[in-house]
Amino acid sequence: MTHSSSADQHPAHAPGVPITTVIGDGQLARMMHSAAIELGQSIRLLAGAPHASAAQVVSDCLIGDYTNLADLRQAAAGATALTFDHEHVPTECLHKLIAEGVNVQPGPEALIYAQDKLLMRQKLREIGAPVPPFAAINCEQDIRDFAEAVSGEVCLKACRGGYDGHGVWFPSTPDEAAALVTKLRAQETPLMAEKKVPLTRELSTMVARRPSGEVRAWPVVESVQSEGICAEAVAPAPGLSPELSRRAQDLAVRIAEELGVTGVLAVELFEYLDEANQPSIAVNELAMRPHNTGHWTQDGCVTSQFEQHLRAVNDQPLGATSMLAPVTVMANVLGGANDPAMPMSQRMMEVWRRFPEAKIHLYGKTHRPGRKIGHVNVSGDDVATTRENARLAADFLVHAEWADGMEI
Amino acid sequence: MTHSSSADQHPAHAPGVPITTVIGDGQLARMMHSAAIELGQSIRLLAGAPHASAAQVVSDCLIGDYTNLADLRQAAAGATALTFDHEHVPTECLHKLIAEGVNVQPGPEALIYAQDKLLMRQKLREIGAPVPPFAAINCEQDIRDFAEAVSGEVCLKACRGGYDGHGVWFPSTPDEAAALVTKLRAQETPLMAEKKVPLTRELSTMVARRPSGEVRAWPVVESVQSEGICAEAVAPAPGLSPELSRRAQDLAVRIAEELGVTGVLAVELFEYLDEANQPSIAVNELAMRPHNTGHWTQDGCVTSQFEQHLRAVNDQPLGATSMLAPVTVMANVLGGANDPAMPMSQRMMEVWRRFPEAKIHLYGKTHRPGRKIGHVNVSGDDVATTRENARLAADFLVHAEWADGMEI
Repeated sequence: MTHSSSADQHPAHAPGVPITTVIGDGQLARMMHSAAIELGQSIRLLAGAPHASAAQVVSDCLIGDYTNLADLRQAAAGATALTFDHEHVPTECLHKLIAEGVNVQPGPEALIYAQDKLLMRQKLREIGAPVPPFAAINCEQDIRDFAEAVSGEVCLKACRGGYDGHGVWFPSTPDEAAALVTKLRAQETPLMAEKKVPLTRELSTMVARRPSGEVRAWPVVESVQSEGICAEAVAPAPGLSPELSRRAQDLAVRIAEELGVTGVLAVELFEYLDEANQPSIAVNELAMRPHNTGHWTQDGCVTSQFEQHLRAVNDQPLGATSMLAPVTVMANVLGGANDPAMPMSQRMMEVWRRFPEAKIHLYGKTHRPGRKIGHVNVSGDDVATTRENARLAADFLVHAEWADGMEI
Repeated sequence: MTHSSSADQHPAHAPGVPITTVIGDGQLARMMHSAAIELGQSIRLLAGAPHASAAQVVSDCLIGDYTNLADLRQAAAGATALTFDHEHVPTECLHKLIAEGVNVQPGPEALIYAQDKLLMRQKLREIGAPVPPFAAINCEQDIRDFAEAVSGEVCLKACRGGYDGHGVWFPSTPDEAAALVTKLRAQETPLMAEKKVPLTRELSTMVARRPSGEVRAWPVVESVQSEGICAEAVAPAPGLSPELSRRAQDLAVRIAEELGVTGVLAVELFEYLDEANQPSIAVNELAMRPHNTGHWTQDGCVTSQFEQHLRAVNDQPLGATSMLAPVTVMANVLGGANDPAMPMSQRMMEVWRRFPEAKIHLYGKTHRPGRKIGHVNVSGDDVATTRENARLAADFLVHAEWADGMEI
């Protein structure tokens, strides 16, 4: 008997089907693989390490460096499309791959706006999309001027590399802001500042777009952040007026089109009260890939964001985005301060015993405080109960006890 | 850069999660893998060939022979449970594995009834489950006697190894039946005969059962056969009375319990009119694994049969089996007489263009006439439209043209 290796005997892909190379080895790539399997396809992975979330389960897995052109080239060989589970591949590498004939989706002209928060805001302002006041910050004077212009409501951001609350600061005084700028500039961190929005809540609108133009939007969700990390998504966003919902979807479609995004685009939005005290929206961040606020689609929609992304980057017709239940809530499983003694498989059993309707998704990741290790989707008829149940389930997976005090 | 091989660097399984060994390499194992990935798990496969449906996509894949104890033993090492995508593993091997401490689910005491059609009927009769009149057939006289007893309405079956219409014969005269028996007995085929039921239609009831006893049933479906192969499943079975539906589910639960089945059990049923001209049911066949008539659960139920099977064989609490839409129809994609020139990926695109709600599942298999290469699930509000759309979609994937004459 032989242990099949993907390098030799293991063909990994049926003849004649799209082969999508995914750069990155996290849970997004992992969940693209399970979607691909159902479509009779599979993905080829460029992973950083063999134990990474997606590398565990993908048979055609290359271990390499996503900033190395030779590795990218090898991963792309023979693929129908190359896409990403993160936005950190250097655009100069992507330009070279394209020149060599690789079908990169989304392309570097779009991706640059997901990589650089300043360029993104400049572009959005240019196309007339609503963004909070912002400025490039190169020195202390820049931040002092900006703080004055926005009455001290300053949010400082690293232009590149931030995620999940990393690379975002809220200095409370101009002096504190200036000191921060000096420190970060000394580390050569490119910076920008944005007016802190007095938001009522955060929303997220996701769309998928094909290179040939078709776009489809999912229902707008409310996303709840905890310490800069998405903790929860509620679909559809409770109490959102049809008019504002439509405006958010139209905005996301327009951004996808104007920026030339292909695949899945997440537009994270602030909802705030405008001068007339009416709910309005402004863009917070963009992500050009499946996104945490879209995980609910796996169990709550006809077409999940992972299947849709694969279809979109291969320029295949997009799937229906209608919901399967009145409400679906996604609650993240974020590593707690400590990892309880109860094994995760036992925690899953307790959750399933109490909530047979809970859809648990885990990423094959070990515990680290604050780390995204999974999520739970629960569908139901009303927001309050569904939200409560999703929260209880996710919380149990973290803490191995019921937040409402129920005995195990 | 290295091409990761599951044998060496590729760990394939996150620490502390169940590892389910699956014997067999077909689409059922393939779809178990995508379900496992979402649970933060993965499967270990014992495949016959590296290009097989499941072997393409499973990273931890052993190539070996499921009738060879050493291969089975190696595949089982370290797994939390060992299960199957077919019923053909010799029970003597399974007994040996169990003696060595392997957790085989379902166990050989149950599996024997899925392997041997005569033993199955004897057992079902013993527990009072409704089965058509049957007899063991060892010689010409046996079949002549049986034919006389059932007024010539004879169905002859090989006790072992039949599937998808293979191993089933409908001789039209006693002489023809006798000649068939002589021929088959000369090939040492163990035989049984069953009274041909004047059925009104076929139904299928699926349940999952854990070793510790929990059982859950899915809604009863109508299954439509074409030349002995399942062509379509409609959930829930149209026009089935709540009383008969309940009776079918109770029957399946009782069979699972009495036969000690664990994992998913499919009970294929005949619906016929009894002496009082009332619809009634009798058992046709059993399968102790996910089943073609349960593929609709992937898109039509809270918990798919593949996830449920993994949970059941690992003795984890079972998931909700409620439906996500009023109707879900599964239509099989069976290889046609010829494979059209249009590539399958193009056919998928045409189907998606017309039916954005169609869920296409393909198995990574190449064309062969009559071969199951995929299925399509469509959910909707009414049976007629949903059925028509699912049929059109599956038919297009086979023939590359619309059965209703629509232009491409």
